[in-house]
Amino acid sequence: MTTTQADLETLAVNTIRVLSIDAVQEANSGHPGLPMGAAPMAFALWMRHLHHNPQNPDWANRDRFVLSAGHGSMLLYSLLHLTGYDLSLEEVKNFRQLNSKTPGHPEYGHTPGVETTTGPLGQGGATAVGMALAETYLAKYFNRDGHDVVDHYTYAIVSDGDLMEGVFMEASALAGHWGLGKLIFLYDSNDITLDGNASMTFTEDIAKRYEAWDWHVLEVADGNDINAIDSAIKQAQAVTDKPSMVIVKTIIGFGSPNKAGSSKAHGSPLGADEVKLVKEKFGFPADEKFAIPGDALELFRSSVENGAKFEADWNAKFNAWKSAFPELAAEWESLMAGDLPDDWDADIPVWSGDDKPMATRNASGKVLNAIAKHIPTMIGGDADLAGSTKTLIDGEANTGKDHPAERNIRFGVREHGMGAIVNGLGLTRGIVRPYSATFLTFSDYMRGAIRIGALMGAKVAYVFTHDSIGLGEDGPTHQPVEHVMSLRAIPKLTVFRLADANESAAAWRLTMTLDGPAALIFTRQDLPILDNAEFIHTGVAHGGYVLADSEGTPDVILISSGSEVHIAHEAYKQLRAEGIKARVVSIPSWELFDAQDDTYKESVLPASVTARVSIEAGVTLGWQKYTGLRGINIGVDHFGASAPYEEIYEAFGLTPEKMVEAAKSLL
Amino acid sequence: MTTTQADLETLAVNTIRVLSIDAVQEANSGHPGLPMGAAPMAFALWMRHLHHNPQNPDWANRDRFVLSAGHGSMLLYSLLHLTGYDLSLEEVKNFRQLNSKTPGHPEYGHTPGVETTTGPLGQGGATAVGMALAETYLAKYFNRDGHDVVDHYTYAIVSDGDLMEGVFMEASALAGHWGLGKLIFLYDSNDITLDGNASMTFTEDIAKRYEAWDWHVLEVADGNDINAIDSAIKQAQAVTDKPSMVIVKTIIGFGSPNKAGSSKAHGSPLGADEVKLVKEKFGFPADEKFAIPGDALELFRSSVENGAKFEADWNAKFNAWKSAFPELAAEWESLMAGDLPDDWDADIPVWSGDDKPMATRNASGKVLNAIAKHIPTMIGGDADLAGSTKTLIDGEANTGKDHPAERNIRFGVREHGMGAIVNGLGLTRGIVRPYSATFLTFSDYMRGAIRIGALMGAKVAYVFTHDSIGLGEDGPTHQPVEHVMSLRAIPKLTVFRLADANESAAAWRLTMTLDGPAALIFTRQDLPILDNAEFIHTGVAHGGYVLADSEGTPDVILISSGSEVHIAHEAYKQLRAEGIKARVVSIPSWELFDAQDDTYKESVLPASVTARVSIEAGVTLGWQKYTGLRGINIGVDHFGASAPYEEIYEAFGLTPEKMVEAAKSLL
Repeated sequence: MTTTQADLETLAVNTIRVLSIDAVQEANSGHPGLPMGAAPMAFALWMRHLHHNPQNPDWANRDRFVLSAGHGSMLLYSLLHLTGYDLSLEEVKNFRQLNSKTPGHPEYGHTPGVETTTGPLGQGGATAVGMALAETYLAKYFNRDGHDVVDHYTYAIVSDGDLMEGVFMEASALAGHWGLGKLIFLYDSNDITLDGNASMTFTEDIAKRYEAWDWHVLEVADGNDINAIDSAIKQAQAVTDKPSMVIVKTIIGFGSPNKAGSSKAHGSPLGADEVKLVKEKFGFPADEKFAIPGDALELFRSSVENGAKFEADWNAKFNAWKSAFPELAAEWESLMAGDLPDDWDADIPVWSGDDKPMATRNASGKVLNAIAKHIPTMIGGDADLAGSTKTLIDGEANTGKDHPAERNIRFGVREHGMGAIVNGLGLTRGIVRPYSATFLTFSDYMRGAIRIGALMGAKVAYVFTHDSIGLGEDGPTHQPVEHVMSLRAIPKLTVFRLADANESAAAWRLTMTLDGPAALIFTRQDLPILDNAEFIHTGVAHGGYVLADSEGTPDVILISSGSEVHIAHEAYKQLRAEGIKARVVSIPSWELFDAQDDTYKESVLPASVTARVSIEAGVTLGWQKYTGLRGINIGVDHFGASAPYEEIYEAFGLTPEKMVEAAKSLL
Repeated sequence: MTTTQADLETLAVNTIRVLSIDAVQEANSGHPGLPMGAAPMAFALWMRHLHHNPQNPDWANRDRFVLSAGHGSMLLYSLLHLTGYDLSLEEVKNFRQLNSKTPGHPEYGHTPGVETTTGPLGQGGATAVGMALAETYLAKYFNRDGHDVVDHYTYAIVSDGDLMEGVFMEASALAGHWGLGKLIFLYDSNDITLDGNASMTFTEDIAKRYEAWDWHVLEVADGNDINAIDSAIKQAQAVTDKPSMVIVKTIIGFGSPNKAGSSKAHGSPLGADEVKLVKEKFGFPADEKFAIPGDALELFRSSVENGAKFEADWNAKFNAWKSAFPELAAEWESLMAGDLPDDWDADIPVWSGDDKPMATRNASGKVLNAIAKHIPTMIGGDADLAGSTKTLIDGEANTGKDHPAERNIRFGVREHGMGAIVNGLGLTRGIVRPYSATFLTFSDYMRGAIRIGALMGAKVAYVFTHDSIGLGEDGPTHQPVEHVMSLRAIPKLTVFRLADANESAAAWRLTMTLDGPAALIFTRQDLPILDNAEFIHTGVAHGGYVLADSEGTPDVILISSGSEVHIAHEAYKQLRAEGIKARVVSIPSWELFDAQDDTYKESVLPASVTARVSIEAGVTLGWQKYTGLRGINIGVDHFGASAPYEEIYEAFGLTPEKMVEAAKSLL
C-alpha cells in the first residue's frame, strides 16, 4: 500500500484522522474537525520530536505534551492508542461513554499519557507554562556539571479559542517575560471557531502580540506539510532564551469534502455519509469502522521501542549523576516517591494563649517559611501582593525577566494565569509543592483554574488573605463575603478558614499531606491566640472540634469558623456568666469535618441539642447544614462596607451580644 | 499667588495631589501615589476635554470617565469635589469611613459622578469598552441626518495592573476589533506596582501589543506636561476608527521627596511628616489639612458653568432632533425613564402541557426573541457559543471587524471580557438592556464581572446554558455541579434555575423588571412542559411554589429546581400510587422565594412537615436551608462524568426511585 516514507507518513496522518472521526461518529458526539486539521502537526511532533515512553507515562524526564484545545480529545486518544500507551482500541470505541478511559475532554489521572485536564479553553496552555517553569526550576536545582537529569521540552497544541482567553494571555505574558525557552506552542490556526469564521471576532495580529511578549514567533503556511512543521519545531528548539509560538495554518476538518474549512466540522459528528467520503478520499475501506492500516500502526508503534530507548539513555545519565551526587539523588528519589523530608515540620511554630494577637496571614507567613526551609521544591508566589499576603520565602530570590528559576514566583497582577501555572507546577507528581497567593476576593478571578486543580487533584496550596469585612477600609469590592462558601462548593477542594495562628499552622501542616488542593483563608486583622497548639491541631485535623464547653450536655451550641470563633467564644463566656450551658465549636474545614464518622460528628454536634447559633462573616447560605431549620445564622448576606473593620462588625451585628441574644431566643 | 495660566494650572494639579494625600493620611489608609502621579493627565482631561455637567451627573450625553485603577479613588473624589459635584469637603474628609460617600474604591450608585465600580483591576477598563459600545449602538439607533444626540467619548485612566489582567486584555482585543474610535485610555505608566518595580513582572512592549489589537497608540514622555497630554488626547480624538491608548509616563507619588517613584508611595499613607514635605514642596501651608487654594478652586469650579453650557447646547440639539423625529424622541424619553414599551411582553410564547418536551435553552431563545422584537435597545451576545446558547436575535446582524453597532454581539471566546462589557452596557440607566451568554461552567471565568454587576445593580441578564450533568458527553470539565449554588451565594444577584419552557418564559419576564442583574440557567436537554403558564408564572414570581399537592397536609415534601423538578414529580406520582401524601415544590429562584413573607413561605413549606427530600443535579450544600437536619438531600457532591446524560443521572442516583426511597425512609 505504501512505497515511500512520505507515503507512509501520509497514511499515518490519515489514520489519526479516520480513527478520530470514527470514534466521534460512534459516540454521535464530539469534535472531529480539530484532529483532522491538526493531525500533521501532531504527527510531526510526536513521531519526530517527542521524547516519551508509551510504556511508562510517568518517566520523569519525558517531554510534556498538552492538548490545550481539549475538545479535540480524539486527536490525543488516537495518538495514545497508536503509539502504544495503555489505551486499547476498545476504549477508543467507547469514546464519551460512561466509565471509559476516553471522556469527552482529556482528564489527568484518568487516562495514561494525559498530562493535564483540558477543555475549558486557555487552561491547557497556561498550565503548560507551569510545567515548563517546573522543568526550569528542577533543572537548576538538580542538574550539576553537565549532568542534565532534568532536561525536557513542554509542547502544546493551542487553538484560536485559547488565544482569545485571558488566562492564556496572562500565562503567555509571563512565559515571555521569564524566557521559558523550552516551551513550544503549535498554534492550530484554522480561522474557524464553533460559531463560524474566527474573523467575526478575532482579527488581531497574533505574531505581533507574541513578539510584544518577547516570544520567538514562527509561521508554517501549510499545515499539511510535515517537513515544514518539523523544521519549525527544530528552529523553535534552537531558540533557548524565548518560548516559541509556531503558527501553523491548517484547515479544520481537512479531508471532509463537504465540511472542511467550516464550523460544520467543529463541534458535531460529520455524519455517517460524510465519514465514508473522507475514508474514500484517503483510500480507507469506506464501510469499515476503526480500521487501522498495519503499516501505519507499525510506524506509530515504533514509539514503544524508541520510548524505551529514550528512558534507558536517561537512566544511564541518571545513574552517572547518582554516582556523582548520591545525596542529591536520594533527595530526588524521596521526592519522586511523594515523601516529605523527615524533619519537614520540625520548625513549625507553636503559639501559646499568652502570645499577643496576630493576623493569621502573618502566622501563615511564618509557617510557610518554616516548612519551605525543609522542602527546597516548595516554590510559589503571589499576584503582586506579597507584601500583603506574607508569602515570600525569606532569603530567596524573586523570579524576573529571563530568570524564572527562583523560589519566589512573582506573577504580577495575573490571578487566573497564576492559578493555572501553579496547577502545572503541581502536576509533577509531588516533586514540586507549589502555592499561589492573592486576596480572597480575587479567588473569583482564578476560579476556572482552581476548579481544574480540584478535578485533577493537583497538590497545590491556594493561599487567600484579606478575608471578609475584616479587611476594612478597602470596601465591598475587596471584601469577600460569598467566596468562602463558593469555594466550599467546589468538589475535592479542601477549604480552611482559620481562627488563629495555631489553627493556621495546623492547616498548613495538613495541606502538605492532602491528596489534592487546599484553599487556605487568612485574615488581615489580628486575632487572639487559641491556647494548646496540639489540641488545636487535632481539632483542625478533624475539620471541626469543641473549643470550649460546659459541663454535661450544653443548652446551646455556638458554631463558627475563622475570625468569628472569638466572637462565639466571647458569647460563650457571657452565657456562662449567666449560667447558661454553652458549647463553642470551631469548624475550620467543612470538608474534613463532614468526612469524619458519625460518632465523632455526634460528639461535636449532638443531635439532641437543636438550639444552635452559627456566626461567620460571610453569607449564611450553607450554615443550615449544621444549625438546621431551628438554628439561627448570623452572617453577612449583603455586600460589605468601607470603614475600619471594628466598625463594620458592629454595624453588621457580628458581635458577642447579638450572638448571646440569638442563643437566648432559642432557649 | 499665581500669575500665569500655566502657574494656575500647576497649582490646580498640586491641589488634586495635596487634597488626595490629606484624605489618605486622615483615613490612615489608601493609595496616595496614583493621584500624585496621574493628577496632570486627570487635569488635562477633565479641564480641557471632558464634556460633563457636575450639577447633573445623569446628563445622557456626558462623556464617560472611568478610573480603572480604582485604588486611586482619591483622585476621582478630588476631581468630583473640586469640579462641583455633590460631594462635599466633609465627605472627602471622611474618606474610607462608614457611610461616607467616599469609600475605599469608587462605587457606582453610591457617589455622584462615579460611572462604574472599580478596584478589582481590569474591570474598569473592560466596563468602559461596554460603555463605548453602548454609545456606538445608541448613536446608530437614535442619530439621524446630522442630528447627533448620542455623541460622546468614553475615557479611562488605566494602570500597569489593569494591563496585566486577562479581563482587560480580552476587552481590549474586542475594542480594537470593533474599532471603537471614541474610546480613549490614558495609561498611567509609572513602572511601579504594589510590590515594587513593575519590571519584576512586566517587561512587555505595550505599544506593540496594542498595535497588534489594532489600536491607535500614542506616547507622552513626561506625565507632568499638561500640554503634551492635551495634544495627545486631541490626536486620539482625531482617530475615529480605532480606540486610542495614550501611554503617559508618570512618576508615582510625584512630589513626595522620599517616596516618589517607589512602591512605598503605592498602597499606604505617606505619613504625616512626608505629607508636610510634599506641601512645602508645592508651596502649600505645611500644617493645614484640606486646604484648597481659592484660585485653584475657582478654576475647577468653572466646570459647573461649562457643564451647564454643554448640557444646554445639547438640549438645543436634542430639541431640534425631537421636533424632526418626535416618535424617536418619545421612544428615547420612555427608555430613559426606565420604562419598557407597553407591548414588550405581548409575544412571549405560552406552552401547554401537551406540547412536546423542549430544552429550556430553546425556550429561552424563543422568549428572548419575543421580547427583543419590542425592545430595540435589547442587545447582547455570546462567547462563541450562540449555536448552543440560542441567544441570537433573529434577522439581526452580528458585530464584526469595524462594525460594533449590531444587536448580536459576538464576543469570541472571552467570557470575562464579555461579563465586564455587558456590565458597561447595563450602566446606561436602563436604556440598553444587555445580555450575555455562555455555558454555565464558564460562569467561573466571568465571576469577577458578575460580582461587580451585582454590586452595582446593573440591569444585565447573564444567560447560562448547558446546566449540570444534563449536558452529557462533554464530561466533568463542562458539567457545572457547584456553579448554581455558587451564584446563589452572590448578594444582589437573582438566580433562576428553570424546570421547563413556561418557567423559562416567566424568568425572562421577571428579569426585565428586576432592579439588578439575573443569572438565567437553562438546560441542553429536553424537558417536559409544565401545564398552565399563568400559574407557573405566578409561581416563579414568588421564587418557589407548590407544583403538585396531596389533599390535606402532606406527609412529605419533595423540593427541587430545574430539570430535577420532573424527577420529583415522577416520585410524587409513585408515592401517590402507594397512598403516600406528597407535595412537589419547585424553587426556581431562592432569592425571590426567600424574599416572600412568612405566610407565603409557610404555605409552601409548612414547618409541621419535617419529612422533606430535595433533589438537584448539583452540590447539596445549601439545600439544608429548606430541608433542615432531618431532611434528605439528593444531589451531586462530586465532579461529573462523560456519557449520555440519562446514564449519568442513573449512575449518580438522581432518579424518582431513589427519591421515593428517601421519602419513605423519613416516614
